[in-house]
Amino acid sequence: MTETNPVPVSVIGLGAMGSVLATALIENGHPTTVWNRSPEKADPLVEQGAARATTVTEAVQASPLVIVCVLDYKAMYELLDPLCDALAGRVLVNLTTGTPEQAREAAAWATHRTIDYLDGAIMATPPAIGRPDAFLLYSGSQSAFERHEATLKLFGDASTYFGADPGLAALYDIGLLTSMYMSFTGFLYGAALVGTADVKATAFAPYVESFLDGVVRGGMGQLAQQIDEGHYPDDASPLAMQAAGMTTFIKAFQDEGIDVEILQHIKGLTDRTVADGHTKAGLASLIEQIRTRRLVP
Amino acid sequence: MTETNPVPVSVIGLGAMGSVLATALIENGHPTTVWNRSPEKADPLVEQGAARATTVTEAVQASPLVIVCVLDYKAMYELLDPLCDALAGRVLVNLTTGTPEQAREAAAWATHRTIDYLDGAIMATPPAIGRPDAFLLYSGSQSAFERHEATLKLFGDASTYFGADPGLAALYDIGLLTSMYMSFTGFLYGAALVGTADVKATAFAPYVESFLDGVVRGGMGQLAQQIDEGHYPDDASPLAMQAAGMTTFIKAFQDEGIDVEILQHIKGLTDRTVADGHTKAGLASLIEQIRTRRLVP
Repeated sequence: MTETNPVPVSVIGLGAMGSVLATALIENGHPTTVWNRSPEKADPLVEQGAARATTVTEAVQASPLVIVCVLDYKAMYELLDPLCDALAGRVLVNLTTGTPEQAREAAAWATHRTIDYLDGAIMATPPAIGRPDAFLLYSGSQSAFERHEATLKLFGDASTYFGADPGLAALYDIGLLTSMYMSFTGFLYGAALVGTADVKATAFAPYVESFLDGVVRGGMGQLAQQIDEGHYPDDASPLAMQAAGMTTFIKAFQDEGIDVEILQHIKGLTDRTVADGHTKAGLASLIEQIRTRRLVP
Repeated sequence: MTETNPVPVSVIGLGAMGSVLATALIENGHPTTVWNRSPEKADPLVEQGAARATTVTEAVQASPLVIVCVLDYKAMYELLDPLCDALAGRVLVNLTTGTPEQAREAAAWATHRTIDYLDGAIMATPPAIGRPDAFLLYSGSQSAFERHEATLKLFGDASTYFGADPGLAALYDIGLLTSMYMSFTGFLYGAALVGTADVKATAFAPYVESFLDGVVRGGMGQLAQQIDEGHYPDDASPLAMQAAGMTTFIKAFQDEGIDVEILQHIKGLTDRTVADGHTKAGLASLIEQIRTRRLVP
């Protein structure tokens, strides 16, 4: 059963993100009920047309679809655990940031209480919510996602359901953001290095962008294939040679007095992979060392 | 004065890279003289039409343009320092991998001996040499680059001269490769994380690619602008909030037993930047901490 008329939605937690989620619902004609621990956060939303709930229970009872977006899982349980009877039979979409394990625990908690649980991760800043490129990740109850897909896509059209494992949204979220942080930090290191010769970061950026396009994007697909096959064939840049190159890089950063711990760590991963026998393989083989700690209890 | 007929070129050092450089020259009609410490490496090139030099001096004397591509700067000096008289007045293109400081020292060494010195860095694997997208970086003598630009672009059409500071090619090279390594390693960490829920790396890669396109490329230009202005305005994702998010990420990796040292370093950079007062700024402000060690003697 999918939605027909704009479904009533309650939003619990009106921080920077919760507030823009509520605004998107109001603007799209959804009867919207809002609650926040500090009630004044609801004022601008009530002005926009939201109903103010004076208790969390009242907020939950107002709608078949309840969205919670609070500081952390502890705050979520404190608010929602006491009113499980009110939540039973409703869809709970949890957009609170957390780990995959926390999402799985919350799904188990919800299932036990016959709450239809969907876990979500928001890959967008508050101002980007509602823009076509805003990207939210969902996992958990497939029926909940399908029933409310139109509503959930008001926050970002490029939103995706990843599967029944409720941890998947958080896993993809953290995996993607890790890629993002590493790429941005890599750019900052590069900018710091070329900056020692008074090269502007804005002059350096286009080269990094074209390098990301040309080398990294294509290379990533190749890495992925080798990882899935668990086979690391001889590479045009053998890892042992790359490790020697990294020694030069580290020396270059040290010559300019720039922090090199992150690069030393990548060098360490590479050295251990080479020592493990992958001298002629490419970078994909590093994943074996990245995963290694899984074997240590 | 630019080249008219294919100029005679000597290639010293016939490793994987030196050999394909020589092949590109031979195939494009350049009278090519080759030398390598182990002479049998020259055999296939002689078959292709190269002249074999029996000594380094003979190689140098055969051409106005001498390309050296050996293991390291130590090997380069051992070969070339004894025959500076032969090199005087010629163009020496040094494609040996090294640090910016090593390139600057070599340029000073060359200038003192009236050798026209161009330093180069190769952003391509040997099989990519000669392809239109192969990218070589040059710095040092502008007149040498301009005179031999057509020849040097045989190795990669997208080659660029960065300026008179002979360290620039190595700086850009190492800056770009640092970005690349960080991006690739970030992808590997993400793939290791989603892999704990049996998500294939090939299923994850397209999301990373689209995230790099949509968020990282655009974000990089913004970071660059803030770095150049030395001003870090309030960000839609305030750094203090991002630091809290990173704590969650690290926990997620730890839950799955995956190595997290690199993420902890990025968290450490972020924490120090926040402690330094940039609580509301964005990621660009991390560069202050990356550069910090420069102030420590």
